[in-house]
Amino acid sequence: MPLVPISQVEELAISALRRAGVPDSHSRLQAQLLIDAEMRGVASHGLLRLPRILRRIKNGVLNPTTIGRLSWRGDAFLFVDGEAGLGPVVADAAIEAATPRARRVGLALVAIVNNNHLGMLAWYAERCALDGLACIALTTSEALVHPWGGRRAMIGTNPIAIGIPTATTPFVMDAATGVVSMGKIHDYASRGQPLEPGWALDAAGEPTTDAAAAKTGAIAPFGGAKGYALGLAFELLVTSLTGAALGEEVKGTLDADRVCNKGDLFILIDRNADGAGAAISEYLDLIRNAAPSPGFDEVRVPGERSAELREQRRKQGLPISDELWRELSALVYEAA
Amino acid sequence: MPLVPISQVEELAISALRRAGVPDSHSRLQAQLLIDAEMRGVASHGLLRLPRILRRIKNGVLNPTTIGRLSWRGDAFLFVDGEAGLGPVVADAAIEAATPRARRVGLALVAIVNNNHLGMLAWYAERCALDGLACIALTTSEALVHPWGGRRAMIGTNPIAIGIPTATTPFVMDAATGVVSMGKIHDYASRGQPLEPGWALDAAGEPTTDAAAAKTGAIAPFGGAKGYALGLAFELLVTSLTGAALGEEVKGTLDADRVCNKGDLFILIDRNADGAGAAISEYLDLIRNAAPSPGFDEVRVPGERSAELREQRRKQGLPISDELWRELSALVYEAA
Repeated sequence: MPLVPISQVEELAISALRRAGVPDSHSRLQAQLLIDAEMRGVASHGLLRLPRILRRIKNGVLNPTTIGRLSWRGDAFLFVDGEAGLGPVVADAAIEAATPRARRVGLALVAIVNNNHLGMLAWYAERCALDGLACIALTTSEALVHPWGGRRAMIGTNPIAIGIPTATTPFVMDAATGVVSMGKIHDYASRGQPLEPGWALDAAGEPTTDAAAAKTGAIAPFGGAKGYALGLAFELLVTSLTGAALGEEVKGTLDADRVCNKGDLFILIDRNADGAGAAISEYLDLIRNAAPSPGFDEVRVPGERSAELREQRRKQGLPISDELWRELSALVYEAA
Repeated sequence: MPLVPISQVEELAISALRRAGVPDSHSRLQAQLLIDAEMRGVASHGLLRLPRILRRIKNGVLNPTTIGRLSWRGDAFLFVDGEAGLGPVVADAAIEAATPRARRVGLALVAIVNNNHLGMLAWYAERCALDGLACIALTTSEALVHPWGGRRAMIGTNPIAIGIPTATTPFVMDAATGVVSMGKIHDYASRGQPLEPGWALDAAGEPTTDAAAAKTGAIAPFGGAKGYALGLAFELLVTSLTGAALGEEVKGTLDADRVCNKGDLFILIDRNADGAGAAISEYLDLIRNAAPSPGFDEVRVPGERSAELREQRRKQGLPISDELWRELSALVYEAA
């Protein structure tokens, strides 16, 4: 695939957003977040989402100008009605408002409802950790995961990201609670590749390794009963604090025409223990330098492989297929 | 196994603790927590820990009278030096102090270091949720889990519990981030039963199904790379806020003679969205009533099987082996 310089990709994405009526600073933020995902190799949260964002604006289920309505429900609890804004724009404004509060009282929670897709959660956790705050980020999604022992998708993929300041670069992990993403299943289906056993059920609730059949079925929770418990707990926690929709009622994270009614949660914490950053960096070095098991080249710290890829792509540019480039260009240069 | 009435077990446990110099109210709390674990079928966090608690008091690494030293580092952040107190006593006092603060400002965080073993985390999450608060509870432990791709135990079993108020009984999940507990491996070893492949490594870092060999080896993280990322993130988060020891430096959660230097974290949140409790209860009913997969009798909500067992045992009594009963009785009636 041709490598396109980051600045050129960014310019194209920003132009497409502006053309759809997105204010400059909002366009820049949304574009940067999508491109950060591409640079990290998380294409499912990258530029392929841009056309859908633009269609959502056109369809009136995404308001490109709002930053959401923020209201403090107590000194440490920020409730946000996202007013159907751009996911990253609303979340960023909320985190911006909550950060000084976290510094003052020790921590702050941001509960957001009526907001569009956030994109990659790692972005927010990293942003906070670079600011010296520990961060727990949660967001819900349309039901794609079946309960452990169930036949039907009833739970979101409900990812969690955790960011922790260290003495050097922050620790950032980001994982969905499904064993694989629906993006990966679509990818396998398009290549006619069979799924691993245990990954998915078909529409009738029967186990399948046929990726095409899994597209209308359900993804297994990661790690069996424990991952199911965690994914469900995240969905309940987000809803209990945001009032977001639950399970099969959640819409608007994958389509172009329905209001997005999932919820987002950020907990920002600003009381690092003395010396903890250095101790954590030392400990992570021990893990990096540990002897690997057979079949592994080395022991990795979560998030670092994607961070390395990002550095590489920052220099070399993004591999973008001609097809995607044409699609993105059309968003800017062709008649609406 | 003979069934012993709960009141009789409680009386015995309280007597043993009192005899070791534990004040009455502390004895009651510690005993209730161990017995709650027994009633839920979590024997690894039950009465078998009582003799060790008493030995720790005798060895001077557990101070039975303190409730810890509490200091607010900001309106929402409670830092606690546990002063080597009884785990549940210190944690309970901290949660008690943090609850009104969570109600006032929206949420509060409790960071505890220098505290003994908490016992079952579900107990705390349930207690908070019954009080109307959402709760995230984390605690670290001695390194028993290997990094994904590693050969050696370098990470605690680092459990998480999440409690959420509903319109009926709270939702409570509680899971360690190892694929199995070391208690289960000991149990398999004592019965000469082979482990499942993928559960553990031996002391040389080689995969093993020999439970005896796994006792000196390492447990796999649950759910592969994702569970590894979560377990590690929990360890870093706890340490970043408590200053607790990390990885192989953690001592005192399994032995009888070393100061316990792990950390505990509780986040209590008091801003349930209007109507969320009822919506969550309805959603959990949908999950309970969903069609099960082949091999499953029904779809379960996490935590409910153990809650049902607790109700049954509350009525029928606890199954306690003659050996354990003799051991516990000796703690009370024999010469020290």
